[in-house]
Amino acid sequence: MKWCRIEVDERAVFGELEGDVIAALDGPPYDGGVRTGATYPLAAARFLPPVAPANFYAAGLNFRDHIAWVNAHFGVSFKVPTTAELGYRSPNALVGHDHAVVLPADSTGSFQFEGELVLVVGRRAKNVSEAAALNCIAGCTLGNDMSERAWQFSDRTFWRAKNCDTFKPMGPFVVAGLDPMDQEIEVRVNGVVVSKYCTKDMLFSAAHFIARTSRYATLHPGDVIWLGSDGPTLPGLDDGDVVEVSNAAIGVLRNRIVREGARQ
Amino acid sequence: MKWCRIEVDERAVFGELEGDVIAALDGPPYDGGVRTGATYPLAAARFLPPVAPANFYAAGLNFRDHIAWVNAHFGVSFKVPTTAELGYRSPNALVGHDHAVVLPADSTGSFQFEGELVLVVGRRAKNVSEAAALNCIAGCTLGNDMSERAWQFSDRTFWRAKNCDTFKPMGPFVVAGLDPMDQEIEVRVNGVVVSKYCTKDMLFSAAHFIARTSRYATLHPGDVIWLGSDGPTLPGLDDGDVVEVSNAAIGVLRNRIVREGARQ
Repeated sequence: MKWCRIEVDERAVFGELEGDVIAALDGPPYDGGVRTGATYPLAAARFLPPVAPANFYAAGLNFRDHIAWVNAHFGVSFKVPTTAELGYRSPNALVGHDHAVVLPADSTGSFQFEGELVLVVGRRAKNVSEAAALNCIAGCTLGNDMSERAWQFSDRTFWRAKNCDTFKPMGPFVVAGLDPMDQEIEVRVNGVVVSKYCTKDMLFSAAHFIARTSRYATLHPGDVIWLGSDGPTLPGLDDGDVVEVSNAAIGVLRNRIVREGARQ
Repeated sequence: MKWCRIEVDERAVFGELEGDVIAALDGPPYDGGVRTGATYPLAAARFLPPVAPANFYAAGLNFRDHIAWVNAHFGVSFKVPTTAELGYRSPNALVGHDHAVVLPADSTGSFQFEGELVLVVGRRAKNVSEAAALNCIAGCTLGNDMSERAWQFSDRTFWRAKNCDTFKPMGPFVVAGLDPMDQEIEVRVNGVVVSKYCTKDMLFSAAHFIARTSRYATLHPGDVIWLGSDGPTLPGLDDGDVVEVSNAAIGVLRNRIVREGARQ
């Protein structure tokens, strides 16, 4: 099953993809949503983030090659984590496929993509075992953890660097039944492939993150867990650039950068 | 106006305090909620957090005396911040007045209160000026930013230290029209006053946090901004201890600590 959330007459509507139409559902599939009979053409759909998560978790450093690149590129010395720890992002930053990503006028740093696989929680989970962990997942989608690197290193927290409005594109579809540990993620900037990796190289598995997090924090339906990015995250992006995060099963999450004040 | 959110027949009901009863509202006051005619006795109310925020912001170090105490007590050297930056907490951790705070069985560190004033956003705000900032606030409530100090210093993020389930009591009431810069906050442990400060000593004002945050992140109705804590945060708490955060206008936010596994 492949589903999404679209905007129809200023309302959010869940829908299931069927060929070139989206068949409306009366709620999210993980909450028993069923078809209403309404359909919308895929080509005209305005995509929202597929869920509005109550809790928005993100793995910071989950790929060895990415850590090595970050250390070399930024002259820092992050260690390879020895335990799985999720950070937080803030839902104000989420936007859907095809929505503009607005870079604030006063940004001075390199503005970079991080193409990621995202788990969507479908079932309440507390103290779940690694063996049972993936049973609580409704499916996988894509995320672009866009980061303003000057603010990431100058500020005490990631509040601006990673959580400005529109800095977190997510979508376009959630696909059930995918193996989160064997997905190829490709990132393209203006049509050129700039990053390509497989999620099998995660330091801590999807199941491990779920199990360990749920030891302390209850996972709720609609929560999302972004699993981190591998490799370099260049080139830096600016007004007019188009970034795509792509996976064969989930599709393409495409967003254009707009620098605030650059257009009148 | 003094309002809250309570649990009635497993549903969340907003209500306005009127003497010793809570008069039900059909929605939050900041969204035009009006009375339904139903009333519930205050004495029997089961309090929920007064809002379920989409975005949960927290000022980390916002009082000079608290920073001095943290540095002396933990042997660290945090600088007094020169710019206002909000961090994030996670809504999974929120509980209401009188709800148990559950300390995980494997906690080894000192478990400490931080009694705080909390702003509840009532109106969408983006790029708001400091002069107009408080117009977007529906009112003030209380929060207890409970912190497991061993995890706070051992982990890369605050995920466990500050965001375990139940670590963020909030309530009991939201009071409209209070001056957030002139509130006395008192914390009591097992009936003994252990902390008392006035919010006039904030490094960055409520209006400044709102204005600066809204430059980058849209504030949404129901979002909360916790304004930080002053002074020491001792004694450390364990099973059976009762902690109260108190303000003359808002009331008393009382929670009992329960160590996981300590009772059969």
